[in-house]
Order: sequence, then C-alpha cells, then structure tokens
Amino acid sequence: MLKSPSSETPAPQTLGELANLLQAELVGDAECQISGLATLSDARPGQLSFLSNKHYRKYLVSTQASGVILHPDFADDYTGNKLLVANPYLAYAKLSAVFSLAPRVASGIHPDASVADNARVHPSASIAANAVIDSGAEIAAGAQIGAGCFVGQNSIVGADTVLHANVSLYHGVVVGRACLFHSQVVVGSDGFGFAPDGKKWLKIHQLGGVVIGDHVELGACTTVDRGALADTQIGDGVIIDNQVQIAHNVQIGANTAIAAGTCIAGSARIGKNCTLSGMVGVVGHISLVDNVHVTALSLVTKSITRPGSYSSGTPIDETALWRKNAVRYGQLNSLAQRLKVLEKLQAPSE
Amino acid sequence: MLKSPSSETPAPQTLGELANLLQAELVGDAECQISGLATLSDARPGQLSFLSNKHYRKYLVSTQASGVILHPDFADDYTGNKLLVANPYLAYAKLSAVFSLAPRVASGIHPDASVADNARVHPSASIAANAVIDSGAEIAAGAQIGAGCFVGQNSIVGADTVLHANVSLYHGVVVGRACLFHSQVVVGSDGFGFAPDGKKWLKIHQLGGVVIGDHVELGACTTVDRGALADTQIGDGVIIDNQVQIAHNVQIGANTAIAAGTCIAGSARIGKNCTLSGMVGVVGHISLVDNVHVTALSLVTKSITRPGSYSSGTPIDETALWRKNAVRYGQLNSLAQRLKVLEKLQAPSE
Amino acid sequence: MLKSPSSETPAPQTLGELANLLQAELVGDAECQISGLATLSDARPGQLSFLSNKHYRKYLVSTQASGVILHPDFADDYTGNKLLVANPYLAYAKLSAVFSLAPRVASGIHPDASVADNARVHPSASIAANAVIDSGAEIAAGAQIGAGCFVGQNSIVGADTVLHANVSLYHGVVVGRACLFHSQVVVGSDGFGFAPDGKKWLKIHQLGGVVIGDHVELGACTTVDRGALADTQIGDGVIIDNQVQIAHNVQIGANTAIAAGTCIAGSARIGKNCTLSGMVGVVGHISLVDNVHVTALSLVTKSITRPGSYSSGTPIDETALWRKNAVRYGQLNSLAQRLKVLEKLQAPSE
Repeated sequence: MLKSPSSETPAPQTLGELANLLQAELVGDAECQISGLATLSDARPGQLSFLSNKHYRKYLVSTQASGVILHPDFADDYTGNKLLVANPYLAYAKLSAVFSLAPRVASGIHPDASVADNARVHPSASIAANAVIDSGAEIAAGAQIGAGCFVGQNSIVGADTVLHANVSLYHGVVVGRACLFHSQVVVGSDGFGFAPDGKKWLKIHQLGGVVIGDHVELGACTTVDRGALADTQIGDGVIIDNQVQIAHNVQIGANTAIAAGTCIAGSARIGKNCTLSGMVGVVGHISLVDNVHVTALSLVTKSITRPGSYSSGTPIDETALWRKNAVRYGQLNSLAQRLKVLEKLQAPSE
Repeated sequence: MLKSPSSETPAPQTLGELANLLQAELVGDAECQISGLATLSDARPGQLSFLSNKHYRKYLVSTQASGVILHPDFADDYTGNKLLVANPYLAYAKLSAVFSLAPRVASGIHPDASVADNARVHPSASIAANAVIDSGAEIAAGAQIGAGCFVGQNSIVGADTVLHANVSLYHGVVVGRACLFHSQVVVGSDGFGFAPDGKKWLKIHQLGGVVIGDHVELGACTTVDRGALADTQIGDGVIIDNQVQIAHNVQIGANTAIAAGTCIAGSARIGKNCTLSGMVGVVGHISLVDNVHVTALSLVTKSITRPGSYSSGTPIDETALWRKNAVRYGQLNSLAQRLKVLEKLQAPSE
Repeated sequence: MLKSPSSETPAPQTLGELANLLQAELVGDAECQISGLATLSDARPGQLSFLSNKHYRKYLVSTQASGVILHPDFADDYTGNKLLVANPYLAYAKLSAVFSLAPRVASGIHPDASVADNARVHPSASIAANAVIDSGAEIAAGAQIGAGCFVGQNSIVGADTVLHANVSLYHGVVVGRACLFHSQVVVGSDGFGFAPDGKKWLKIHQLGGVVIGDHVELGACTTVDRGALADTQIGDGVIIDNQVQIAHNVQIGANTAIAAGTCIAGSARIGKNCTLSGMVGVVGHISLVDNVHVTALSLVTKSITRPGSYSSGTPIDETALWRKNAVRYGQLNSLAQRLKVLEKLQAPSE
C-alpha cells in the first residue's frame, strides 16, 4: 500500500525546545532534531515517541525513535534521549499540535465565495472557495470557513472557529469560540416535530435556534437540530464524534464526550463530564446527571440520577449458539414462573 | 450562554387574528399583540403559550404569557387571555407556521449558481448560490434549491419543494410537491448491490430510480438509495428524521414516521401510518403491515403481519449488575434445559 | 405514483451481442433487441430478465420479458429466448453495467470549478461545477470529481475513481484506482482523539492520513477518519454501504463488505472477506480474522479469532410480551442461582 502524503513536511524541532514546551526533564541530546511523532514500534530515526501504556514497555528496547517521552518510573528502561513527564499521554497530546499539518484556509475571502452584502466577516477571518455566507451572518476574527460551507441568515461563527468543507449552518445558529466542525456537519436543521391531524402529520415549525459553547468539536456528518421553541444547547468543551444526532431542545453539559453513531432524542438533558460510547440511544425528555457513562449500543430509556456506568444489550456469541439462547429470551417470563412453581413445591419438603 | 438570534424579528399578530385562524373561541383582549410562541414556563409578555399536557397545568398560575391556548375543560384554570380549542397541540402546530422565521431562498437564479442550458427552472423557483442543476433537470414552480445543492440529470423537483443547503439528488430522481429535504440529504445514490465473483464483489449497477411523493420531509444526512431495477418509493406525507438510511427498492407507505438513526434494508416494505422509533433496524425483503409501531433500537428480523407495537433489546442497568445478567444470557438455553430436568424429576412425586 | 425517468433512454443491444458478452449459450432469436433489465414479474417486452432464485420460477410462465437468463437446469421451464449460464445472478450483474445510465461528469474542468494553481489534474479527468481542488492535490487519468466536491491539500484521487456530488476529502488522503464514493462521503476527518487534562479534553491532533485501495466503494454519508499517528487503511475491493463510520487507524482487509449504519471504533482490525451486516458496532483495539460474518445490530466487544458467524441482541416480539421478558433479563443472574439451589436440593433425593 501507498503511504499517505500527510506527514511529508513536518516542521523540525529540537528535543530541547520540546522539553521546554512540555516543562519536561530532558535526559540526552537537547540539539537532536525531531521531525514528527510515532508509536514506539512505528517510529523511525528523527521521530519522537512516548510510553503511556505499560503493555508497550517491551518496545523500548527496539524502538528506532530518536527520543521517548515517559514517566520517571520507567526512565531506567530506556537508554536513549528521554523526556520525563508525569503524564506522557497528555504530553503527546500537547506535542501533536506542534506537528499538525492540517492546512489553514487561506486568509481573506476567496473570489469564488459568495458573501451577502450585509454579512460581517472579520478581516482576519477566512472564507474558502464556493462557501456561501447569508445575509446578516457574522464571521468573527480568525474563523475559517471551508470550501462549500453554508452559513445561514443571522448566524454567528465565533472567533478562531473552524468549519471544514461542506458544513451547513442554518439561520439563527450561534457557535462559540475555537470550535471545530468537521465536513458535512449540519447545525440548525428542523427538529422532528409534527402534530397528528387525523391521519396526516402537521409540521410544527421549529422556532428555536441552536447555541453552541466554546471549544466544541463536532465530527463529520453529525447533525444538531434547532429547538422547537427554546434553543438546543451544547456546553463548552463538549466533544462529539462522527454521525451523531442531537435532536431539538437537547441540552448537553460541559466537557461531555459522545462517540460515533449515538442518537439523543428530543429534550433529553445530558449532564457535565458524561461519556456516551458509540451507537448509544437516549430517548426523549429524560435527564442524565453529571458523570454518567454509558457503554456502546445501550439504550437509555429512563432518567439516570446517580453517576456511574450503565449498559444494556447482550454479549456476542457464535450465531448458532446465540440463536438457541435468543429463543429462550422470549420464554424468560415463563421460565421464571416455572422456577417459582418448583421452588414452592420444594419448600414444604424441606 | 448567549441567546440564539433566531427569534429576533417575529411578525406581530393580534390575538383576534390568531383566534380567527384557529377558529378558536377567544376569551379576552382581541387586540393584544402576539410576537411569538413559547412554553408556559418560558413565555415572556407578548408571547402566546399553550397547555396540551396536564402535567404543565401548574404553570398556568405563574406564566408570563399574554395568552394561552387550552382545552375548554381547563378554561377556568387560567384567568388571562385565552384561546379555547379542542386540540391545543394541533393549534400550536398551526400557529408555528405563522411565527416561523426560516428564510426563503431569494427568488430567481443566483448568479453564482450553475444551471445547465437545457434544465427547466420555473420562473417562480429559486436557485441559491453555488447550487448545480444538471442537464434535463426540472425545478417546478415555487421550489427552492439551497446553496451548494446538486440536482442530477433529468431529475424533477416538484412545486414548492424546499431543498436546504448541500442536498445531493442524483440523476433520475422524482420528488413530489411541498417536500422539505434538510441539509446533506442524499437521494438516488447506488443501492448496495454486488454479486460475489469468486473472491471479489462485482458491482450491480443500479438501474432504478427513486420516486418520492408529496409533503415528504427528509432529515439532515438522511440517505435514500436508488433501486436496482425498479424504483425505491416513499409515499405521500412520510416524515423521516435525521441520519436515516433507506436502501434500494424499499417502499414506505403514506404518512409513516421514521425517527433518527433507523436503517431499512433493501426491498423491505413498510406499511402506511407506521412509526419506527430511533435506531431501529429492518432487515431486507420483509414486509410490515399498516399501523405497526417499533420501539427504539429494535431489530425487525421478520415480516410483521398484525398491527401493534413491537420491541427487541434488553433494559438498561448499572454496568456491574448488567454484566452478571449478560453472562447468563449465554447460558439461557442450558438454564432452560436444567429447569426442564428438575420439572421432570418433580412430576412423579406429585 | 410517477415513474422515475431514470430508464428513459437505454442503449438497445441484441440478444446475440449480450450472449457473446456473457459467453452464454443463446437459445432463440439472436437479433431480438433488448433495451433494459427487469425482474421476471416487472419485465415489459424489450427487456431481459433472469432467474437466480428458485422461488421466482413460477414467473417464467407469465413474464413479458423478451428473454431470460437462466441456469441450464431450468432451461426447459421457459419457452422464450434464453441465455444459459452457470451463474445467472453474476450474468445479471455483468449486464447491469451495459444498461447503466449513470451520467459521467463532462470531461475537463468546468469553468465554475475552483482548482489551485499547483494542483495536478490529468487532461482526461473531469471536474464538475463548484468543485474545489486544493493545492498540491492530484486527480489522475479518467477520474471524475462531482459538483461541490472538495479535494484537500496534497490528496490523491486515483485513475478512473468517481466522486459523486458534495464529497469531502481532507488533506493527505490517498484514494486508489476505480473507486466509487457516493455523495456526502467524508474521508480524512480527525479521529476522535482527546487526552483528559483535569476536567477538560485536550485535542490530540491527528497526524496520520487515510490510504484507500483500488475498487473501493463508499456509500452516501459514510465517514472515514484520518489516523492519529499512522494511517487508517481500507484494502482493495472493500465495499461499504451508506452511513458507516470508520474511526482512526482502523484497518479493513480486502473484499470485506460492510452494510449501512455500522460503526467501527478506533484501531480495530477487520480481516479479509468479512461481512458486517447493518448497524453493527465494533469496539476499538480488537481484531477480527478473515471470513468473519456478523449479523445486524450486533456489538462485537472482543477479538474474534475463528471464522464464522457471530451475533448479539434479542429477538423481536410484541412490546407487551417483550416487556415481561425484558424485566426478567435484569433477574437472570438470580434466576440462575435459584435454579442451582433447587438442583442441589434435588440431588440427594435421587
């Protein structure tokens, strides 16, 4: 297979500079040039690696890395250049920003962009080719609007927020500072609200908006609906993966993390610092307190009032075995009743 | 948090005008100016509210609304201006259209749109910036094509239908009148059809199209595949939420409602007036009669021949407790067999 | 309902030409003109049909088709023109390419496309209106880039690969030859990587790319994230349906098929020739060997080391009955323990 060209031109840094940035203790050659990051087993000379999981300790002997970030407890396990820090994984995260090659949208308004006369675009903001900024919209300082994006009427994109290509923001959407929305994200689409009118559905026009805090990341193809009357709200520091659905009037507390494929139904409230794993369903009009964790493919059908970890579903098995057990699932209530009968029969004989 | 700017400039209406529109009995000041709608607890002076769920009756005392829509049975519970109707929720739905601020795409063809010479665009239709209308496509009267949309060769968009930004319609797609497709909707992509050819998959080119009826709503990022030979069909009045997948040759009956994240596999037939909750799976080549309701995260593996409500899955529990029970799921068949043995042992002693 | 206009102008072929193409034995009129394909029950005169499933054998008597492809064993069941082949379904797949009307993007660079000065577009490639090709990107011979697509910096689109409208490829993405990506596909979005930093999440910039082999099909709204350090990899001949999520550093072996709504979490490895049905979840950092098959809505929580079919979940039932059984699920462990007590009581009495 070919190699991705994404890491062709890293900006070299010296180990000393990186130690300084991390406030790490450097043991070794401060002038060693580092051109990128890699795992212990993949690293080539010139790259820096890290040990955050003890299971990979064995690779310290064979790694080709020009330096390793590790906890002082493991310092003796590695003889090369090392950066000693309390939290090597966090140090790696910090350095990932240094070596990122994600291109900025070129500054200014691309001649092929379409910007309404009364839209307000800050001179330091960037609007890429074929993006469309509707009337009354505001693009704040340092914001980057990718190719083919649409920013609807009167919507606000906060400072330093980045929209990747083909994002759609409807009218009346407020996005905070330093957010990152990936391609195909939709914010402000109508909530799924209809009133039954005899045999047909009468549309309930969605009059609320969407308010998104600062430092929020939305993954590719994630959708956030506007509120029916009040606004849908996503708190500061919330991170949301790809293909997630946030329905109308949902409220998500600060720093909650939501993995791919999860759907949160209308008016549900998710607390702060929660983690919802992939493909979780949350039904409408319920509340989860702070610090709730839900495992993958679980369905949350009622409010959760105590922090902790919650699950539903069944374990995976070979289909032939699974089928035999699954049939019994439909007999569970009668099995339980039969067990009770036996217990009653047994009781007097004791 | 900031407030969404979406409800900045509502068009004021008098209570008398609104009563007239709803054919409601007005008790109170017909000249009272109403600028918008809100829930009982959120309403500010100048806004109209409604009581449709008895649980919120307590808010009638404290609401700041300038008027409330309610059922005559509750008329005595509220002392302010009131509109009496048989179905307050339906009345709210009707008024939501009056106060909607969703902007229309400006009439005519935007100079930055790209319209093929032989496409037929009705003079009253609207084509937004950077939309692309391919050869032979037809955009009927009053239809609105949002920014960045693509309408493929020979496709038809019916009168008054609205495509929000960045919708993709392939070639040979027919969309009826007064439909509403949200951003990132895809209609007419290839069905997932491949024939195994030894160890590889040979693509089956999808020769059918998609035919969508009138008054159909498709949510953001929803996908509808074209048929393999015949067309995929979605009936009149069908409402579909975000992130839903409709595979090739699926047929969906009129006024069926499908919530977010649901996937319907190839050639499945869903009846009329069904409701599929969120994240439901329907396997291919099965049929559901009219008036079938399926609860969230259920998998429909066989045809359903009787109207009613259907479910699969397990209840949510604390992960530690769930794990103990989940392990037993893999033992269910042997538990049932052991129970039977006990019952047989017991039988002769009775 | 209207008929989709998609099959308006098929290119007529003679039965003799088609027999030649399939290397089939022709029994009947070699000069018979065939304008398209249809099922036995839908076929009109001038169309060719096929019998691949014995259940449809009864339609051989009444079909209006001008010819039928069938296995020699069934030749006597049909009296009209016939093409005899060992694998009629594969023959149908081959002919589907002949009758496909999917339009090509017009050759050359559309004047409304936006192509960076230093992008390399092969003269035989096609770039549709409002597509954006970023700096350093390469579009190889015969490739077609649909309307509104974005191809990021230094990304490579291989020969004869087709991107339908509004696809987004980020920077540093390598796509092989003869791939087909449907509308709204996203490749190269950031993997969902964050390090907890006290109470906040620190973004881990995703420094890897995505490498996609040859003959890969990605369905509408499918997303493939870039790797954290190394690349996300999709092998040759992999076919992926709509709304699928492939997380960072996933590796998918050649000719694996993945149905709609499936989510594969970070660093999971899927073998060759696997099939994942719709809405399957695969947790992160596990491996599936070659030839593993997973049924719909199953969650794979651990590595699978033996080929075969695997499942999780429970059967669908009427909600009222399901609820009774579901309640017992939460009692399963105690039911099993009570059963064991009874068995112990019973044992000595035998």
